[in-house]
Amino acid sequence: MSTDQISYAPMAAPVKQIATHPLCPITAAEIKQSVDLIRSLYPAKTDFVFKAITLEEPQKAQLVPYLDAEHSGRKLPHIDRKTFVCYYLRNTDKFHEAIVNLFQQRVESNVRLGPNIHGPGDWEEILLVEKIALEDEGVKAEIAKLDLPQGTAVLCDPWIYGSDGINDDLRMYQCFLYMRDPNDPSNLDSNHYAFPLAISPVVDCVDFKVIRIDMCPTGTDHATKEAQASWLPPPNEYTPEHQNLRTDLKPLNVVQPEGASFKVTKVGETGEIIEWQKWSFRVGFNQREGMVLYDVRYAGRSIFYRLALSDMIIPYGDPRAPFHKKAAFDLGDAGAGAMANNLKLGCDCLGSIHYLDAVLATARGEPMPMENVVCVHEQDAGIGWKHTNYRTGKAAVVRSRELVIQSIITVANYEYIMAFMFNQAGELTYEVRATGIVSTQPIDEGVDVPWGTIVHPGVLAVHHQHIFSLRVDPAIDGHANRLVYDEIHPMPVSDFNPHGVGYTVAETTVQKSTGLDTNTDTARTFKILNESSRNPVNGKAVGYKIHAPPFQKMVADPESFNHKRAEFADHNVYVTRYRDGELYAGGKYTNQSRGGAGVRAWANRKESVVDEDIVLWLQFGLQHVTRVEDFPVMPCEVIKLQLKPVNFFDKNPALDVPPSNQEFNRSTLVTEQHKQPAVEGRVGEGAACCSSKL
Amino acid sequence: MSTDQISYAPMAAPVKQIATHPLCPITAAEIKQSVDLIRSLYPAKTDFVFKAITLEEPQKAQLVPYLDAEHSGRKLPHIDRKTFVCYYLRNTDKFHEAIVNLFQQRVESNVRLGPNIHGPGDWEEILLVEKIALEDEGVKAEIAKLDLPQGTAVLCDPWIYGSDGINDDLRMYQCFLYMRDPNDPSNLDSNHYAFPLAISPVVDCVDFKVIRIDMCPTGTDHATKEAQASWLPPPNEYTPEHQNLRTDLKPLNVVQPEGASFKVTKVGETGEIIEWQKWSFRVGFNQREGMVLYDVRYAGRSIFYRLALSDMIIPYGDPRAPFHKKAAFDLGDAGAGAMANNLKLGCDCLGSIHYLDAVLATARGEPMPMENVVCVHEQDAGIGWKHTNYRTGKAAVVRSRELVIQSIITVANYEYIMAFMFNQAGELTYEVRATGIVSTQPIDEGVDVPWGTIVHPGVLAVHHQHIFSLRVDPAIDGHANRLVYDEIHPMPVSDFNPHGVGYTVAETTVQKSTGLDTNTDTARTFKILNESSRNPVNGKAVGYKIHAPPFQKMVADPESFNHKRAEFADHNVYVTRYRDGELYAGGKYTNQSRGGAGVRAWANRKESVVDEDIVLWLQFGLQHVTRVEDFPVMPCEVIKLQLKPVNFFDKNPALDVPPSNQEFNRSTLVTEQHKQPAVEGRVGEGAACCSSKL
Repeated sequence: MSTDQISYAPMAAPVKQIATHPLCPITAAEIKQSVDLIRSLYPAKTDFVFKAITLEEPQKAQLVPYLDAEHSGRKLPHIDRKTFVCYYLRNTDKFHEAIVNLFQQRVESNVRLGPNIHGPGDWEEILLVEKIALEDEGVKAEIAKLDLPQGTAVLCDPWIYGSDGINDDLRMYQCFLYMRDPNDPSNLDSNHYAFPLAISPVVDCVDFKVIRIDMCPTGTDHATKEAQASWLPPPNEYTPEHQNLRTDLKPLNVVQPEGASFKVTKVGETGEIIEWQKWSFRVGFNQREGMVLYDVRYAGRSIFYRLALSDMIIPYGDPRAPFHKKAAFDLGDAGAGAMANNLKLGCDCLGSIHYLDAVLATARGEPMPMENVVCVHEQDAGIGWKHTNYRTGKAAVVRSRELVIQSIITVANYEYIMAFMFNQAGELTYEVRATGIVSTQPIDEGVDVPWGTIVHPGVLAVHHQHIFSLRVDPAIDGHANRLVYDEIHPMPVSDFNPHGVGYTVAETTVQKSTGLDTNTDTARTFKILNESSRNPVNGKAVGYKIHAPPFQKMVADPESFNHKRAEFADHNVYVTRYRDGELYAGGKYTNQSRGGAGVRAWANRKESVVDEDIVLWLQFGLQHVTRVEDFPVMPCEVIKLQLKPVNFFDKNPALDVPPSNQEFNRSTLVTEQHKQPAVEGRVGEGAACCSSKL
Repeated sequence: MSTDQISYAPMAAPVKQIATHPLCPITAAEIKQSVDLIRSLYPAKTDFVFKAITLEEPQKAQLVPYLDAEHSGRKLPHIDRKTFVCYYLRNTDKFHEAIVNLFQQRVESNVRLGPNIHGPGDWEEILLVEKIALEDEGVKAEIAKLDLPQGTAVLCDPWIYGSDGINDDLRMYQCFLYMRDPNDPSNLDSNHYAFPLAISPVVDCVDFKVIRIDMCPTGTDHATKEAQASWLPPPNEYTPEHQNLRTDLKPLNVVQPEGASFKVTKVGETGEIIEWQKWSFRVGFNQREGMVLYDVRYAGRSIFYRLALSDMIIPYGDPRAPFHKKAAFDLGDAGAGAMANNLKLGCDCLGSIHYLDAVLATARGEPMPMENVVCVHEQDAGIGWKHTNYRTGKAAVVRSRELVIQSIITVANYEYIMAFMFNQAGELTYEVRATGIVSTQPIDEGVDVPWGTIVHPGVLAVHHQHIFSLRVDPAIDGHANRLVYDEIHPMPVSDFNPHGVGYTVAETTVQKSTGLDTNTDTARTFKILNESSRNPVNGKAVGYKIHAPPFQKMVADPESFNHKRAEFADHNVYVTRYRDGELYAGGKYTNQSRGGAGVRAWANRKESVVDEDIVLWLQFGLQHVTRVEDFPVMPCEVIKLQLKPVNFFDKNPALDVPPSNQEFNRSTLVTEQHKQPAVEGRVGEGAACCSSKL
């Protein structure tokens, strides 16, 4: 890492703290101040490309005492407000990262990074690259050879270049071309992924010009063909205007006549504290991670210090150039915050909805208001618990209510719906729904390949993996926690176990930072424990257990760039000793990364993780063997990861949820004719609730 | 199998067909007729105990042509209506099963079963056994030694005896004793599982008397103590009256102003056809399985011939007598139909609900009406699919609606909530929610054991498994189907795969009936295919794939009775060649069974299952390491098994679902003060739906 011009702005008199809490996301004013302070380091006419301007979170050593003081009502210590800025000098490869101290009004550090450290894409750049690729004379010439019908619109999806170690020191984009339905040129929402082309221009990001035009293989091997006119496949549209819509779906409304059960407290311009059913936490939002939850507590007891999706990789299975470079890190390469949808009422959630806004920065360093990037709402999650006393016929039943903190991102063709879900039993679920349009490429008629499925005539959807890493910074009754795992072992047949039915639970404590795997055959279950806090009923250490669905790890070769770069994708769980700034499992800069800067490297420090300040990196994912049913847009594939209390409470924490009855729920009896009698008429009966058959 | 008196009632003139469809569950009249015909075989005063009187489903060779004729509007062939009856001659071990032909008004067969074949429990018997155990002088004497406070109620939970091969040819119950809160004797719903006693009477089921009183070990080994007065633990109640209920949960109502989207067609007295969002199927209900789905089709295309939960086993991990015999087969030993809750409006489901009733038979052979044993309703399942065109900002989003067919059973201390859930993407989910009260036993103060968790002072909840078997009789575009599995294999690094990122899918066809396991490391995925029906887009065989969460198989020793009896619990999937009457994975009679009569035995016929009429037995389950949070009643543990189309449709079948917008969904904006502006005022904005950040 070479450094130039560690510079300082002229020391200004300290100004009053800008934000009202150290964890509030940065404000528009703070973005402007940060940019001004960076600009002041350079000659007046210097042109910048800002890749990210976000909150530089306080060091934990500072923030923990602050939070403790806050929760115990003591005087709050002062913490300097800081921002993190990374930027290029425009039309150069000079990539910098800086820490700006807004309280002291100075640039604390400004470091030029590299070589082979590249910043993420940004909207301005992506649109520029599209334009450059499509206006390039060489690309135009190739497109002309296709002899497309008059007025056919050709589109360009710029892809992060990926890495293969071959002439890829330059920061570049690999562009994939498609066209809209040639027979419906006016349809701007035509699904161009049904018309992939075999032309793939490469654009460099210093001079911003096409430096190479790759032709894509469309057969069973690496061979490529000259661009040429060919048979046009039919369209395959997903927009409602092009469907013969079902007419027999009746509305289903979620009505909360007394409003929602959660409370939102605004903190300054950008901060939000959410309280619901004994849970409390702060919500942050940034360019890279999108939603971040801080200081998660239940009935005042500390459980998590920080929660956020840390990274994801989507490697594809086609071995052939240029497709072998398709391995997207959507958070590090693009940003879950930068790609967040503007959620609209009645479209993305049902019920009584609260939206959170955010402010990010444009490439020009201007504040970019992001409206409705997070929605907060409750949902019914079915029966929470039930028991019927068969002797008296008395049933006790409660429903499970969930609080959902949801954000949706669009990364070119694909969508992810991400949500934190809290329930009344002290459980936290992180859910990802994968949807959107599978990435497509052209394939010759009559050809089939074992690394993908033909989802439309002439269109191949290559199999791929989605591997996610959720970063969990626990603080279970405090910051000194440990990771253990339980395993079930059959007892040997013996005089003590004469019938061979006995089995026991064995607990193993993880000693050093490392990567670990699940084992279904022993029901291996990972738990985060606080040895110093004991359950009053049975004296066991209080904790939370991790329920994550097992998944196929990174399939790519251990020597491949995919494996080296996705440092989290080879184990179900990584545990590391906490260090400030270690937030992203794949490393801070994933664009054309080389590996060695992420969680695998940190775990290799082999630090003690027993009753220390530890961090868990929880991986989950899916192997997406594509189906025709996944096109032209795929039904959501849902993955849930759960964190559940284990001997943390002294009984079922949902025991005090009010019973589920008709006065409260006001359901309706459907006659076969779908007539609806007045709800009122049935309250008495409903209130009786279930009785057993006796 | 010894047989006596294969008898026939005097041949009566054929009477008119009673039910209007061969798959309609039997009526009260058919129960009466069946009983009369059985009685006519015996002397007038003979006393019977009827264990089950249910529909004897037509042989498939008869029913398939009937269904084909039905769907093609051709004349329906005649099928004799038959019932299955199993019964004891009261106060004997003479257990019989009979087939009664109601159309011909004769008993077709009547066979005495045994030895070591025992019928299930029934309500009358369970209550009788409770009474006998508690009124036994020896048991009373043991209870007296406890010196319980005046008025303390002692309760008896009879458990199916299980099998261990030691003096267990007799049909018996192992009873476990508890008491209600001694300090609140008037509370009939006191949670007696918080007060387990160490006295365990054994009742025989011929003479119905206590034949042995076992004392339960309460320490770390097999040693038992004399009954004696001891310290009384505090109560731990679950009923709402005993809770300090939360007061900040606001109502959440599901309102369907136009009614539900499903159509129910009554067929005769007991049949129901349900149609919803292109799905159609018949619902049956019987003593053993509870809900059964027949002839499941989507847009008229056949997918499944029959679906039902086939069996479950709950083996416990305590090696010590009498606890080692705790291994419940709740379907075969008790009956998911017989134990079904009477569901009440507003308690167990939200929205517009339709209930199904059933008629079962009492031990006396009387019809037992079962009201509201199944509820049918729709629920919102979040976003179904979404894509935003970042170039135009246009978002297309639909919600996923599910149709839920739900039944809830109470088996003494425990509850299971079972549901079939259909969605608009052609997917079928089977969900089980495990709740209720964990089985408890006494443990001495200061003692800890590795096979259970102390959940309350003096109360141990032993670790246990729940292993379920869902029987899937597929008919995917016809009855000749095959089972295959896909696996993902990395390509070797080579000139063809120079970067080591390539991987391929390999499909293996299962040749012979057998048990098979999942493999997460290769993403092994089982698929049911019809080789003779090809996808129009890619020519692949149409099919459905199986997504079932992996689970720890039966932990008990392969030589143990638990392993021998639970013939399904050792593999994720069993595939067998169809044979009439093979419906229950653990065998027809699980009570004190010895094994050898279930799916493992059938699979061992090693019949060809390639493009044949096959049956899938899909296992799933959970290893329940108990937590304090699971007491006094446990939060639902949810398990889902999914069946998803794979190249069955020519595109995403949910593409034609109407878009999700505010006119339809009528959500509400929550202000921080929870005021609710009129929905109308926001329709215009909502209708715009999401736009991207561009």
